[in-house]
Amino acid sequence: MSENDGVVFEIAVAVPKCGENKSGDDYCVEVLVNELRRKGLIIERVVGLQNEFIKLAAPLEVLGKAAAELHFRKRTHIGMDFPFEWDEAEAFVKLPDGSLFSWCERYRCYNHILYGIVNTEKSVLKLKSDRTEVDWKPGESLLRKLESVGIVKEVFPLHDEKKRKQLLRSWAMNFTSQPIDDICSYYGTKIATYFAFLGMYTRWLLFPATLGFTVQLVDFGSFQLLVLPFFFICVISWAVLFFQFWKRKSSAISARLQIYQFSQSEQSSSQSPTELMKKQSTDRTKEKAVFQREEWFRWLMRLRNDALIIVSIICLQLPFELAYAHLYEVIGSDLLKFCLTAVYLLAIQYLTRMGGKIAVKLIKYENNENAEYRANSLVYKVFGLYFMQSYIGLFYHALLHRNFKTLRQVLIQRLIMSEVIENLLENSIPYLSYSFRKFRTVRNKLKREEGQATEKARPIPRVEKDFLKPAYAASIGQEIEDGLFDDFLELVLQFGMIMMFACAFPLAFAFAAVNNLMEIRTDALKLLATMRRPIPRADATIGAWLNIFQFLIVMSICTNSALLVCLYDREGNWNLSPGLAAILVMEHVLLFIKFGFSRIVPEEPAWVRAARRKNATQAEQMCSKQLLRSISGDEKLFREAKKNE
Amino acid sequence: MSENDGVVFEIAVAVPKCGENKSGDDYCVEVLVNELRRKGLIIERVVGLQNEFIKLAAPLEVLGKAAAELHFRKRTHIGMDFPFEWDEAEAFVKLPDGSLFSWCERYRCYNHILYGIVNTEKSVLKLKSDRTEVDWKPGESLLRKLESVGIVKEVFPLHDEKKRKQLLRSWAMNFTSQPIDDICSYYGTKIATYFAFLGMYTRWLLFPATLGFTVQLVDFGSFQLLVLPFFFICVISWAVLFFQFWKRKSSAISARLQIYQFSQSEQSSSQSPTELMKKQSTDRTKEKAVFQREEWFRWLMRLRNDALIIVSIICLQLPFELAYAHLYEVIGSDLLKFCLTAVYLLAIQYLTRMGGKIAVKLIKYENNENAEYRANSLVYKVFGLYFMQSYIGLFYHALLHRNFKTLRQVLIQRLIMSEVIENLLENSIPYLSYSFRKFRTVRNKLKREEGQATEKARPIPRVEKDFLKPAYAASIGQEIEDGLFDDFLELVLQFGMIMMFACAFPLAFAFAAVNNLMEIRTDALKLLATMRRPIPRADATIGAWLNIFQFLIVMSICTNSALLVCLYDREGNWNLSPGLAAILVMEHVLLFIKFGFSRIVPEEPAWVRAARRKNATQAEQMCSKQLLRSISGDEKLFREAKKNE
Repeated sequence: MSENDGVVFEIAVAVPKCGENKSGDDYCVEVLVNELRRKGLIIERVVGLQNEFIKLAAPLEVLGKAAAELHFRKRTHIGMDFPFEWDEAEAFVKLPDGSLFSWCERYRCYNHILYGIVNTEKSVLKLKSDRTEVDWKPGESLLRKLESVGIVKEVFPLHDEKKRKQLLRSWAMNFTSQPIDDICSYYGTKIATYFAFLGMYTRWLLFPATLGFTVQLVDFGSFQLLVLPFFFICVISWAVLFFQFWKRKSSAISARLQIYQFSQSEQSSSQSPTELMKKQSTDRTKEKAVFQREEWFRWLMRLRNDALIIVSIICLQLPFELAYAHLYEVIGSDLLKFCLTAVYLLAIQYLTRMGGKIAVKLIKYENNENAEYRANSLVYKVFGLYFMQSYIGLFYHALLHRNFKTLRQVLIQRLIMSEVIENLLENSIPYLSYSFRKFRTVRNKLKREEGQATEKARPIPRVEKDFLKPAYAASIGQEIEDGLFDDFLELVLQFGMIMMFACAFPLAFAFAAVNNLMEIRTDALKLLATMRRPIPRADATIGAWLNIFQFLIVMSICTNSALLVCLYDREGNWNLSPGLAAILVMEHVLLFIKFGFSRIVPEEPAWVRAARRKNATQAEQMCSKQLLRSISGDEKLFREAKKNE
Repeated sequence: MSENDGVVFEIAVAVPKCGENKSGDDYCVEVLVNELRRKGLIIERVVGLQNEFIKLAAPLEVLGKAAAELHFRKRTHIGMDFPFEWDEAEAFVKLPDGSLFSWCERYRCYNHILYGIVNTEKSVLKLKSDRTEVDWKPGESLLRKLESVGIVKEVFPLHDEKKRKQLLRSWAMNFTSQPIDDICSYYGTKIATYFAFLGMYTRWLLFPATLGFTVQLVDFGSFQLLVLPFFFICVISWAVLFFQFWKRKSSAISARLQIYQFSQSEQSSSQSPTELMKKQSTDRTKEKAVFQREEWFRWLMRLRNDALIIVSIICLQLPFELAYAHLYEVIGSDLLKFCLTAVYLLAIQYLTRMGGKIAVKLIKYENNENAEYRANSLVYKVFGLYFMQSYIGLFYHALLHRNFKTLRQVLIQRLIMSEVIENLLENSIPYLSYSFRKFRTVRNKLKREEGQATEKARPIPRVEKDFLKPAYAASIGQEIEDGLFDDFLELVLQFGMIMMFACAFPLAFAFAAVNNLMEIRTDALKLLATMRRPIPRADATIGAWLNIFQFLIVMSICTNSALLVCLYDREGNWNLSPGLAAILVMEHVLLFIKFGFSRIVPEEPAWVRAARRKNATQAEQMCSKQLLRSISGDEKLFREAKKNE
């Protein structure tokens, strides 16, 4: 296969190893391979220890034609986006690495080609397989059929060894900066946006970390009373500023990475201006009524689901969490405490998973417009669950019992547990599962070959290693979200922990900063070394998580005010002395800052807006004249036709 | 002039009456008339009692050519907006009344034609006039020159008698609904949006009005304590819902009235794809840096101005207002109180005008991007002034002195004063000023003609009546805003009054509802009968006022909570008993509703979004192929040219 030397195989299909007697022309795997070859794909078949792998690569022309069929919108040299046409490929901007399509686009094309193999005959084709015959019905997708009967075990993206090693050096081993553009080109915009956010968050976190460190360790003498409110104001302003600047940065990043983004133009069947005009002139009020009915129905479903989730969280989860917190408070013995915590941890594992499943089921009824809406809906619901789980116990210790010792203790436990240990687990569990699967594969192979004449011991081929690695999947709602969900959830819970109890434990920011520095590298290592290459996703924002961060800021204004009241009001008689009235005023001022500030700093940098506007104008000027002529011509014909009727 | 019978004259130019000796060919008014005739306008000269008027109307072709020069963007039959071309006028959608251009567009065209008369000769032309010679320099606009030397007194839009009478019947005399589309067609989208808002607001106001009426008058026995908090929650939810639904309605209105809207496409000099590509490939980072510098500079200027305004309001206005409130509180005699109020009212008249002037001056330094930004900036600044003026005294009575009797008294005073009386003044002052000017004109005429042979007493021509009517101008910042500013300000101050002190005086909503019912009719009458036709403005939203309404809702959550605390905490020791803690919790819940609710109800109806998306897709599909071919062809040429270099 020397002709394939420079070819990068990007997708693999895992099929059972084929014995000698099964390689007839109508054996289903052979049929698949032949069909794929007929589509123009470059194929390499690799026999692994346990499975056979069909590695696929596509020449540019094949990709381009698939892209045109899928109506990809791509940036042209004049700066405007257009549906892709293979014949006019010259008009479209190439990526910095010289290729025409981003990884996300290529992946969609591969999928389109692979699942686009259908039976064009009019009769059912009988294909042979290991155990049984497969009926390939007319118009049915071959790959989907083979997946459903279990012959094709998996279709998965492959790592590109060259680029992967490059990223290992420039990203996972680099402690000063992240190559966002390279990450975007290798993993797609969604993952690049996560790491850009994580990087910026960690850099900004250094300010409150040092401040918290100072507040915790230095004694300010007679000003000690004023230190915590000051810290509180600083931290809230910091958070508000951070997210305002993140929005700016996010829109700048998304403008910069736009060429990597993926979008499909919507289809409408009619093409001629005359037809369009006829449509335009038909009754629009009917259409409007339909839309309105649908919109309100969707809204009602969503409201019902949200109400269900909220009620069940309050009625089922809240008492459970409070019971645990209360028991933890009253039990004296440390051993019992430990046992209780162990039981609790086991129970919430199970409960959370169940809650996630319910949320996914509810979302399916919601009939959301697109995948992003669905993902956001899941994020909100699952976050509600975790919010209750993570913080209600802390509130209990802090506000009802005013037990700041336990609060701090729990906070440290959580910060160390949830961060250091979770980081370790996050990396070691995939690696262990990978090692175990590799070991089992080799052992099975040895077992099977025991009786036979032993060939030379072959090493595991790289594609089989990729196959054995775990996929980058979410722990909850895998159908909707991928592994980023867990990473973001961890980040959000950490943010809530350090912000909402900032006044009780200023040192937490330092913990978080150190942890995040590690988090970036371990997440990078996880993606590069121990995980299968993730399926690329195209959104270039952090989506619903931004709203959750904003919500946590507001919550932290309220909780910190309450904490300050608890700290300064030792007698516990809730007397609103002038000092405590001052805290109330401070709370309102901070809330005002939170909501007022978002209006002061513009969310989109001026240059992004200007570039966008310029592009739109330029393109319009070029195409308007021709188009106008055809419309006005058609309009005349249309009116004449009407007169004649 | 029988040929002009069906012509509607829309613009008039007021010039001095010309005697017999001044009508030479190089007399400046004659030159102007000739030039206008040469541009293709239809002209009628009317000699009034004091001035001569040149009434202008434009045939469609003249307007169309001006529109093409101005690069108007107009809706085409395929549903997409394009820069207007006179040759392809068939392609563009006509308005429901059969005309091609809306009033706002026509006004721009007239202005373009009128001020576009320049001296095309190479030498200075000397024009005769009453007193002196006018030098018309090459390239100078004739009308602007004549305005600057005072020969052209004013250029003003004329009422269309037929439509005006129709509107009088269908709008000002109609007490059930408003013909928003007709208003929009006659006055432009900005005024139509104001009346749509006022109509919806009044209709929604009926709910809290009846509720407030019930709360005020019915005795609920043992539940009396719970009635006010319940009313509070209802009113806040009502306000939040109202503005959410207004946003929906606003976007629906703006989609419906889109054909009346006016927009100009931006100009860029280069037209060919090749040039654009070259531009695209030049260094973009430099441009970005310039944009960023400019943006931050603008931001700093705005921040400085806002800080200046806020500091001066707090340091100068606050003590003044507090002093008045305090004196009002301590003075016993009613006569003294009355005198004090009179002095105060005179003083604030002067102070407000001064504050407005300062705000306008500051805004000039702000270097805002466009007129709308500038208008919004003025709205915020002036509202700050009025906020302090209208409410600080009320806060003083309510919160510091807990003097609910005075509070209610002042509220009733303000509501009746500011509403009934202001409504009367609003209508009578323009009418009186119009009558006075008319009277003076007739008297002057008579004086002049005393010696001469008396002709038959001519009536005042209609165009002169229009000229004598007052313009629809703002009381503050006339350069930036028009009369809508005062109307909106009145509405906002009323809203703040009834919302922020809802718990102290629930009946206020009923007052406001009655007043607004009148307000719609009186405003309509004012616009139709006693004012000159306003200069049309094109924005289809209520702009910065929406943010101010939102701000007032948040403020009213806080103030009503404070009022409730004051009402229930009779001893004045600020003790946070469980009941008062409940109020605090309620406040936070309401704030949460305020900010959470805006996420739940979508701001844009689904059908508006769908229609917009469909239009974009359709148009793109039609024009993309041709354009792509030209881009890719040019790209090839471009690269070859580069190679040859």
